[in-house]
Amino acid sequence: MKLITTIAALRLELGRCRKRGRRIGFVPTMGFLHEGHLSLVRQARKENDVVVVSIFVNPIQFGPKEDFKTYPRDLKRDSGLLRGLADFVFVPPARELYVADFCTFVEVRGLSGEYCGRSRPGHFTGVATVVAKLLNVVAPDVVYFGQKDAQQVAVIRKMAGDLNIPVCVKVMPTVREPDGLAMSSRNTYLSPKERQEAVVLFQALKSAEHAVATGLRDTQKIRGMLEDFIAHTPSARIDYIEFVDKKTFERVKTVDRDALLLLAIYIGKTRLIDNVFLKAK
Amino acid sequence: MKLITTIAALRLELGRCRKRGRRIGFVPTMGFLHEGHLSLVRQARKENDVVVVSIFVNPIQFGPKEDFKTYPRDLKRDSGLLRGLADFVFVPPARELYVADFCTFVEVRGLSGEYCGRSRPGHFTGVATVVAKLLNVVAPDVVYFGQKDAQQVAVIRKMAGDLNIPVCVKVMPTVREPDGLAMSSRNTYLSPKERQEAVVLFQALKSAEHAVATGLRDTQKIRGMLEDFIAHTPSARIDYIEFVDKKTFERVKTVDRDALLLLAIYIGKTRLIDNVFLKAK
Repeated sequence: MKLITTIAALRLELGRCRKRGRRIGFVPTMGFLHEGHLSLVRQARKENDVVVVSIFVNPIQFGPKEDFKTYPRDLKRDSGLLRGLADFVFVPPARELYVADFCTFVEVRGLSGEYCGRSRPGHFTGVATVVAKLLNVVAPDVVYFGQKDAQQVAVIRKMAGDLNIPVCVKVMPTVREPDGLAMSSRNTYLSPKERQEAVVLFQALKSAEHAVATGLRDTQKIRGMLEDFIAHTPSARIDYIEFVDKKTFERVKTVDRDALLLLAIYIGKTRLIDNVFLKAK
Repeated sequence: MKLITTIAALRLELGRCRKRGRRIGFVPTMGFLHEGHLSLVRQARKENDVVVVSIFVNPIQFGPKEDFKTYPRDLKRDSGLLRGLADFVFVPPARELYVADFCTFVEVRGLSGEYCGRSRPGHFTGVATVVAKLLNVVAPDVVYFGQKDAQQVAVIRKMAGDLNIPVCVKVMPTVREPDGLAMSSRNTYLSPKERQEAVVLFQALKSAEHAVATGLRDTQKIRGMLEDFIAHTPSARIDYIEFVDKKTFERVKTVDRDALLLLAIYIGKTRLIDNVFLKAK
């Protein structure tokens, strides 16, 4: 496994692999890896000859009041976890990806301003921009993302399609803690009490899933039920509860086709997201 | 020479070329080809094994009141001119590049809103977006543009650099009619009288070049001189006269380093642009 910090060095290595006809799988991450990331890397390992993992806490996807500075980082631990799984770990310094007069942004209009985009203006433009850049650097055959970040996945799929980026976007299921909490690097922000209460997201999703399975279709009613449910958790504050079309990400009023239930909930000061597919039949 | 209308077919052909180690040169155009375009294609022919020319009048770079519908088109004539020069001519229908729910845009902030961007809001975002798409489709080693569209060149260079698109951007000199008028597909809009008067752009550039060569450095004074000069041409109306740094495209007040003089002038209803390098020494 090679640790690489410059675009030129990574391109040189990958150019050699490509010349030999090797299939390249790529997992972009912000580091502080957990089982969610590792499930992507293992999948990439299964399906490709060469596996590239990037670790880059992307400054332009954080708002001015967000946690860019405090976002957890531990390259030594991450490297240990990737040994035997990844061939190349790309860890560029910020200046390698953002020159001083950097000013080009990739914007997926519409989708970027909704849901998480409302609470985090500019976030998805930052995500789309860095992913476009990384795809241009790595030029992988397949790139892997986790379903936990459902809107991110939708933004990146749309971006890659609209800009004709020749890559296959694969999405792997959310990996959860034993109690159901979706794995996230931000879970480390939670106090022990908050950590216990954070299971409310998973429980809310499960109860919605159950309600739909037993015939409830009206999203307003399901939302009301979820609001009541979440209100019992002292540290929880709802950012949004949304029901969207699985493909277009447009809001749906009735679960009469396969939908996605998106949750963003503050647990204390930590904003957590999760989602579940709701099967219409 | 093959005429190709779909992304899939072009990728198949170019994939084969690339596997054989062929170097690919690409000239994106909006068609109605003139000597300016052909000089780019000839240069591409000299420097590459495979030459791709795209002909696509890009709807998203035209404003709602601009000439998208009337922009001159003549594929038969263009094909004739390219025979023996290009290997592949890519002529996609609009739907091949823009799906119905297309919504991803590449924006070079700052630079896109200045100069031509002021008269043509959204123009350079449309240009940057389509060029990013075409570069992702063709994946050329080198892409060629003409110096006549100086700001376009600057926008594309910045975009390709900022987004790490692995391509070399080459710029070839403006090709001119015998009287000095820069070649442009839009010259066909000019009436015979306007065509005569359109030489005012070239003459203005020449007089500025001369003024600088003889020691004038103050851009305000040069601008005043040019305004007086252009005022003598009845059909001419100045859109802008700007002096910018050759690399950063920031405005300069004094020609104490190599600068670029940019002109945009309406001749009747036709907006023409041209530019010249001003050597500080």
